[in-house]
Amino acid sequence: MSFDYINALLKKITSRTPIWVMRQAGRYLPEYRATRKQAGDFLSLCKNPELACEVTMQPIDRFDLDAAILFSDILTIPDAMGLGLYFSEGEGPKFSNPLNTLASIKQLKKPNVGNELSYVTDAVSVITKALNNKVPLIGFTGSPWTLATYMVEGGSSKNFAKVKGLMYENPAHMHQLLDKLADTIIDYLNGQIQSGADSVMIFDTWGGLLNKQSYEDFSLQYMTKIVDGIKREFHGKIIPVTLFTKGGAMWLEQIANSGCDGVALDWTVELNDAQQRIGAKVALQGNLDPCVLYASPEKIREEVKKILSQFQGDTGHVFNLGHGISPDVNPEHMKVLVDAVHEFSKR
Amino acid sequence: MSFDYINALLKKITSRTPIWVMRQAGRYLPEYRATRKQAGDFLSLCKNPELACEVTMQPIDRFDLDAAILFSDILTIPDAMGLGLYFSEGEGPKFSNPLNTLASIKQLKKPNVGNELSYVTDAVSVITKALNNKVPLIGFTGSPWTLATYMVEGGSSKNFAKVKGLMYENPAHMHQLLDKLADTIIDYLNGQIQSGADSVMIFDTWGGLLNKQSYEDFSLQYMTKIVDGIKREFHGKIIPVTLFTKGGAMWLEQIANSGCDGVALDWTVELNDAQQRIGAKVALQGNLDPCVLYASPEKIREEVKKILSQFQGDTGHVFNLGHGISPDVNPEHMKVLVDAVHEFSKR
Repeated sequence: MSFDYINALLKKITSRTPIWVMRQAGRYLPEYRATRKQAGDFLSLCKNPELACEVTMQPIDRFDLDAAILFSDILTIPDAMGLGLYFSEGEGPKFSNPLNTLASIKQLKKPNVGNELSYVTDAVSVITKALNNKVPLIGFTGSPWTLATYMVEGGSSKNFAKVKGLMYENPAHMHQLLDKLADTIIDYLNGQIQSGADSVMIFDTWGGLLNKQSYEDFSLQYMTKIVDGIKREFHGKIIPVTLFTKGGAMWLEQIANSGCDGVALDWTVELNDAQQRIGAKVALQGNLDPCVLYASPEKIREEVKKILSQFQGDTGHVFNLGHGISPDVNPEHMKVLVDAVHEFSKR
Repeated sequence: MSFDYINALLKKITSRTPIWVMRQAGRYLPEYRATRKQAGDFLSLCKNPELACEVTMQPIDRFDLDAAILFSDILTIPDAMGLGLYFSEGEGPKFSNPLNTLASIKQLKKPNVGNELSYVTDAVSVITKALNNKVPLIGFTGSPWTLATYMVEGGSSKNFAKVKGLMYENPAHMHQLLDKLADTIIDYLNGQIQSGADSVMIFDTWGGLLNKQSYEDFSLQYMTKIVDGIKREFHGKIIPVTLFTKGGAMWLEQIANSGCDGVALDWTVELNDAQQRIGAKVALQGNLDPCVLYASPEKIREEVKKILSQFQGDTGHVFNLGHGISPDVNPEHMKVLVDAVHEFSKR
């Protein structure tokens, strides 16, 4: 196995800067679109361990990536809680039973990961076998706050009126919901770790929409609970955990204090600034603007050089985009990116 | 005239913290919806000085606000450049002639503010008369970068692929476009100032989507040019200028160095933190999360108290939301907000 990804997160020496890319298994790849078509729809693809494995492996087979990431969705947990997840074309995720009353929050049941979410842990097992130690596998979850936004809004949202209204008006109910989600996520990530995940990541897509105090109280507090609650070592191997709050550059110090191993950055903060602030404590992941992939190969290589040169030292950096790769990116540009990172970071 | 708004921006003593609210003339007000219906559509409302005055005055008549803001749209300039602005229901602004070739950028003509944009300066004159010195009038513009995003994308965008692709691939063309916009905006704001605007504001809605270097090169540089180029004094009165980069909390020091009088903040940064960073140099505007207005009057009052208590000292603070007021907010809650700010900030 190439250990560069795990080693970088643990701040051990690596032969070059490892890279993986958020949404690397996704719509920009024609082979992904073919498998998804075969599955029927996105959710069926997530729920079929063999097909989920197939799409997880596609970017690994095509590019020289240093890690694979489980193909799944952050909304599997609310779906398992009975909210009825579905995807309507062009509109993103929706729930047929959103949490639109205080009673519905109180009545919400913690799902049994071994039952309702076994398709996820099964997928992890199948993928682990297929990877055959070629590269490590990253398991993941959405953060409690991010899951709660979808559950209360009933889907995506423009201004998060309902969930923020609830937070300001009924903080106790909000905390009850977030705590239930955090407990479920601990079981969920532990299930992934026991099934073979070598590292886990928590995606806090919407934490950046909070103010500082609300972020600490309603998002970071529960991610910290998860970091504390999951297995950080399994069968003798260390399981690094990475936190990513999109738009959270203001709060890097607090995030680094959660006890995580890695902090993922969007592109609004420079790596050297982030290193000065929290680099003694954690590894950093990121942070190329995904839109650079729309530019020509030469420009992509230039921007990769810039990012690499912003990071000081030989370890503690995992290269990634600052957000997921866009569906309309040319896969050849992804190859340019991956190869440039390796070429320019050889020690 | 109540001078609190101007005085706060100039860091002079005020009797209480002044407040105005972004989008205070807007869809949350039933009287606005009635006038808009009368106008036919949004753009006709902007282009009719008498009706634009009517809606500008509506929140002033209803609430105890400390400033009025010109009713207009940031996209009047690209429209005047021949891009053909229109609004399609529920989809936001669109251009029938977006800048989709490098040639179209080169050929773009600087409009004559006195001709193509006289409906805006006329509106300022009519409003100034109607206000009759009751409160100051704020003129405004979008930032060059923000205007460019709409012009190149052809409307709103999810990931700004086209405009960022252009920026990374053809920075020289991008600079040409931004410079032309900055020059036009200088004329545009000077036209507003000469017609009676007491203060001006530059809205950089999408600057926060750039990385630090791109922000400085492609957004802040051109806002600084505008700050340098506009009349900062007219007929003996100082015209304060405020900059607002949504999502720009990482770059407050650079923004404050632009030479502006006020920096508007979204809610992701706390006022005392911002004060420590830039408070010696500029006044601060903000920064209540607009979603607080979905909560009950008691909660709104609590959150207002929090924001006010975060600001140290008796001057240099203009209260506002961190973003525009949402269309589905209860107007009674707006009244609670305005009155709470005044009540809790009496010196």
